[in-house]
Amino acid sequence: MSQIITLTTDFGTQDHYVSAMKAVMLGIAPGARFVDVSHEIPPQDIMAGAWVIRNSAFLYPPETVHLVVVDPGVGTSRHPIALKVKDQYFVGPDNGIFSLFFDEFDYQACKLNNKKYWREGLSQTFHGRDVFAPVAAHMSNGASLEEIGEPIEDLVTYHWAVPIADKDGLQGWVVHIDRFGNLITNISDDLLDEHLKDHQLKIYVGNTMLDKIVNTFADVEDGEPAAYIGSSGMLEIGINKGNAARMLSVDKGAQISIVLQK
Amino acid sequence: MSQIITLTTDFGTQDHYVSAMKAVMLGIAPGARFVDVSHEIPPQDIMAGAWVIRNSAFLYPPETVHLVVVDPGVGTSRHPIALKVKDQYFVGPDNGIFSLFFDEFDYQACKLNNKKYWREGLSQTFHGRDVFAPVAAHMSNGASLEEIGEPIEDLVTYHWAVPIADKDGLQGWVVHIDRFGNLITNISDDLLDEHLKDHQLKIYVGNTMLDKIVNTFADVEDGEPAAYIGSSGMLEIGINKGNAARMLSVDKGAQISIVLQK
Amino acid sequence: MSQIITLTTDFGTQDHYVSAMKAVMLGIAPGARFVDVSHEIPPQDIMAGAWVIRNSAFLYPPETVHLVVVDPGVGTSRHPIALKVKDQYFVGPDNGIFSLFFDEFDYQACKLNNKKYWREGLSQTFHGRDVFAPVAAHMSNGASLEEIGEPIEDLVTYHWAVPIADKDGLQGWVVHIDRFGNLITNISDDLLDEHLKDHQLKIYVGNTMLDKIVNTFADVEDGEPAAYIGSSGMLEIGINKGNAARMLSVDKGAQISIVLQK
Repeated sequence: MSQIITLTTDFGTQDHYVSAMKAVMLGIAPGARFVDVSHEIPPQDIMAGAWVIRNSAFLYPPETVHLVVVDPGVGTSRHPIALKVKDQYFVGPDNGIFSLFFDEFDYQACKLNNKKYWREGLSQTFHGRDVFAPVAAHMSNGASLEEIGEPIEDLVTYHWAVPIADKDGLQGWVVHIDRFGNLITNISDDLLDEHLKDHQLKIYVGNTMLDKIVNTFADVEDGEPAAYIGSSGMLEIGINKGNAARMLSVDKGAQISIVLQK
Repeated sequence: MSQIITLTTDFGTQDHYVSAMKAVMLGIAPGARFVDVSHEIPPQDIMAGAWVIRNSAFLYPPETVHLVVVDPGVGTSRHPIALKVKDQYFVGPDNGIFSLFFDEFDYQACKLNNKKYWREGLSQTFHGRDVFAPVAAHMSNGASLEEIGEPIEDLVTYHWAVPIADKDGLQGWVVHIDRFGNLITNISDDLLDEHLKDHQLKIYVGNTMLDKIVNTFADVEDGEPAAYIGSSGMLEIGINKGNAARMLSVDKGAQISIVLQK
Repeated sequence: MSQIITLTTDFGTQDHYVSAMKAVMLGIAPGARFVDVSHEIPPQDIMAGAWVIRNSAFLYPPETVHLVVVDPGVGTSRHPIALKVKDQYFVGPDNGIFSLFFDEFDYQACKLNNKKYWREGLSQTFHGRDVFAPVAAHMSNGASLEEIGEPIEDLVTYHWAVPIADKDGLQGWVVHIDRFGNLITNISDDLLDEHLKDHQLKIYVGNTMLDKIVNTFADVEDGEPAAYIGSSGMLEIGINKGNAARMLSVDKGAQISIVLQK
């Protein structure tokens, strides 16, 4: 087994929090190999965390464990959970951080309630160290979903996680703005193919309308907006040599509508 | 042997400094496995470094080596040292960065003066690469304190490192302000239990007075200050849904007094 | 083989880009061990990237692979390349990022054109994941320059990469300003020895003239500028207890002239 454990948190790298989680995991899984996905998720920004893990998790070798701690509700009644999605494992809070998987993939989930796999002396405020990290390490050692908890079905999800398709077209959301200001949506290449292939269409986002999907934003004039499929396989809106978020006044969470022209 | 080496520095991650230290260590200890605790210690902030290492070091597997380079005095006569504290090893400058251990734990220390374990061609300004990293790698390979240096007893310490207990109560210091603005002190749960258990008390910090220790700051009204034991096992002052450092005008290094009510 | 792969990019650590590259590499080279040199190279700053890799690469164990992705020209006709320099391997774009090696060392280079070593489904914008990372992982597994591409000779280089020596002295460039404001040049200790050893000289940078090289800037008065050899073995200009870049109004890319006094 590869024993790769990835970490995605909003803890930053100034404090001891990430180190504490790794220390606990090395005590349980001495052969664990860590990959830091990001500790710079904006504090408590569930949408940002959801986007980051969705984009790299399925590139990892089978049986990689992904520890995800963006957890504004720590100490409340939100459940700690673990999931198997395709051949990858995930551990984190049930607060919608895994939303982007639910429509796209089949999954199995459990509620973490077997305290045998937790750290002794649970704190109110640091479940990353006391619950999620030790469970991730045990899963990396081979503990199954059945051993660490009991099945759970209704998981927290967000409206922005699932694009809506109907006879008129598709509705999605801007789930990420990258550092160049490109607007990245939750509408995938596959979804477009399925619903809109070979049709004329109009794309509405903010006050802007676009009437085609191009190969890359280099296909439009400097300063002009373009819709294209980005490197994550999702529909993006960018501006050639410009910042789309700023120039189009569109923020994360904005709706995007694609309307079929019949 | 696990051959885990952790790194805590104020080098940031823009420059080649951390990479240079890891390169040197991999040359000496090819099996070394690195954990970056933090490279974002504010430049030359010894108190911040002391706090970060104290909080995660003792969670690591036995014989982990902790390399700590926050070293404003590099090139002066401050000694390079190594310590064994409990089952953990530490390497760094004798400038007070290990202060928080001295009252709480027994330790053995040595002054690094066996140049056989240093890198050839010592620079004036980069002892991290030329002294501390190679010594840490050799310790990870099993070199003993006796081999790498000679015993040293009087180590640099800071007044803020050690809380003072007397018949009237306890006096401590705010040693860290976390990113939520909570004031974290050097008064541990154990110390409170030993001196103040089941007594009425008053807590003074800045211009604020509190008259009890609660379980979590969710136990007070929004906007009210609360004293509680945080996830590091230390007394903290926080404000429910607020920033205590800002709202109480208290900075790192401030004194906190706990006065027994007889 | 050690299977160490270092990473130097301008991707930052907020997004999934670095994680995606590591995931792809772990799929190809399960035993790979990553060292992050820096992901905080200022966006598209080729000079900064060149400086960072030059300073730590040759400290690594033999056969380390260095993945370098600062790639403003991704998607254009710039070549992806790999190099062997001394006992180290490098993979990245041919855009001058390796400039600092060319004068100092012998090297062998190839143009990456064997798509067998690339990821399937090449994107226009993320060659880090689709070309450079997989090639780096295959090289770490032992693939040779001959297997991954074909020889290339004329590589992109920058004027600032190579100091000029003539009968009057040396001319170099400020290639880095460290966080203390010290001006670091591309004039090495060896070059100075070769051309100027035991001669009187004058050093000109911006509007400042210096007439000697001292051991450390502690050898001059507070607030005075000094020329000295820094920890990277290069000539630096610093100000004792001051910020040279600010106080001398000198920026990265500035010329420095050393004139022999006959």
